[in-house]
Amino acid sequence: MCDACGCGDTTIVPVEVHARLLEHNDRGAAHNREHFRRHDLTAINLMGSPGAGKTALLEATARHLGGSRRLTALAGDLATERDAVRLRTAGIASSAITTGQTCHLDAEMVHRALHDGIWPGADYLFIENVGNLVCPAIYDLGQEANVVALSVTEGEDKPLKYPVMFRHADLVVLTKTDLLPVLDFDRRALEDALACVIPEPRLIALSARSGEGIDAWVAWLEGRRSVIAAAAS
Amino acid sequence: MCDACGCGDTTIVPVEVHARLLEHNDRGAAHNREHFRRHDLTAINLMGSPGAGKTALLEATARHLGGSRRLTALAGDLATERDAVRLRTAGIASSAITTGQTCHLDAEMVHRALHDGIWPGADYLFIENVGNLVCPAIYDLGQEANVVALSVTEGEDKPLKYPVMFRHADLVVLTKTDLLPVLDFDRRALEDALACVIPEPRLIALSARSGEGIDAWVAWLEGRRSVIAAAAS
Repeated sequence: MCDACGCGDTTIVPVEVHARLLEHNDRGAAHNREHFRRHDLTAINLMGSPGAGKTALLEATARHLGGSRRLTALAGDLATERDAVRLRTAGIASSAITTGQTCHLDAEMVHRALHDGIWPGADYLFIENVGNLVCPAIYDLGQEANVVALSVTEGEDKPLKYPVMFRHADLVVLTKTDLLPVLDFDRRALEDALACVIPEPRLIALSARSGEGIDAWVAWLEGRRSVIAAAAS
Repeated sequence: MCDACGCGDTTIVPVEVHARLLEHNDRGAAHNREHFRRHDLTAINLMGSPGAGKTALLEATARHLGGSRRLTALAGDLATERDAVRLRTAGIASSAITTGQTCHLDAEMVHRALHDGIWPGADYLFIENVGNLVCPAIYDLGQEANVVALSVTEGEDKPLKYPVMFRHADLVVLTKTDLLPVLDFDRRALEDALACVIPEPRLIALSARSGEGIDAWVAWLEGRRSVIAAAAS
């Protein structure tokens, strides 16, 4: 296409900077994890595309539990405290983390936000990550589990196209199933796609709107929490 | 929360590296733009969340134009050539750009992909960016216009929560309007949100499935192309 464009002449990929950053993040995540375990706080890193229904899932979780568990959340977004406000309205003690231009949360942001003191005595801390199916996957926050929310309107091929995110998932939550009757969604195709990138995929389909499947999701959370408690004792 | 965690002691934000990277990218974008203009190729950077309906929009565009324009596309994804295959099936000469772990396209990736030679004699080049409502916004690719696809299922508040992306948009395309009857979507709330981040928001609502609004979208494209042609002559 061109003879003298110079592309590729300059080494711009800051590999060593990136490695240093991740190493620093891992130390912060280990530190967070220590705190979470000491305080018997089950921390869940909830990831997914913008509009996948992460906040609605947490609202539905609070409705389902009806006060039987103390829930807290950190809501990550580039701007606004809207999700934190929604979550507080739902009865979940929440702080916002606004990242500016940053496309993911990191361990240090979570650590700083915990200074807001929402967590003492809580059973769960949901860390609602910035809506993004790429970058959040590689930053450990100290969580006990990674959950990826994927809405039925996003299509069945997302695990194939965003394999890094799904490979890091302990659970995939298929959201907005109330819309299935008006979509050409092939659940089998999604399961096949997941099986390509996760050895033992775990999938729960649910609708925050209708409440369908929320019981299975809460049972998964409680199971995860009891496994952690058993390991600690 | 802790006395000796060491957070904040190490300067890890590689500001100077990032600035150098963007500067390098801008040079590449200017170079691409020169090529596009010399060859009368209208390049559109199409961005949006995963599953926002970017590929479906391009398929519907090809159906609407029915061969009256020569369309080409670059389909950016972390993995797979699925979108490029879909676009070729729709009659759009297309190459895939697979980015691995990278969450956006940059000018150099676009430049390299153009060596595949899909563009000579074409009228339009659609650069379908990686599905991501954050990072792609800050990388100029040499395009004539930025278009952001937002689906009705993602919610009205996305411009407020992802202001950087919407601030860079020449046009916002509201996709999947065929789903409106089953959603509680408030178009006025979206317009208000857009008005907060864009001085003169331009919004076209459409459905790739039903074809509603595709004529307005194609008219916008053609208008944009004629403005560029007028400026060049």
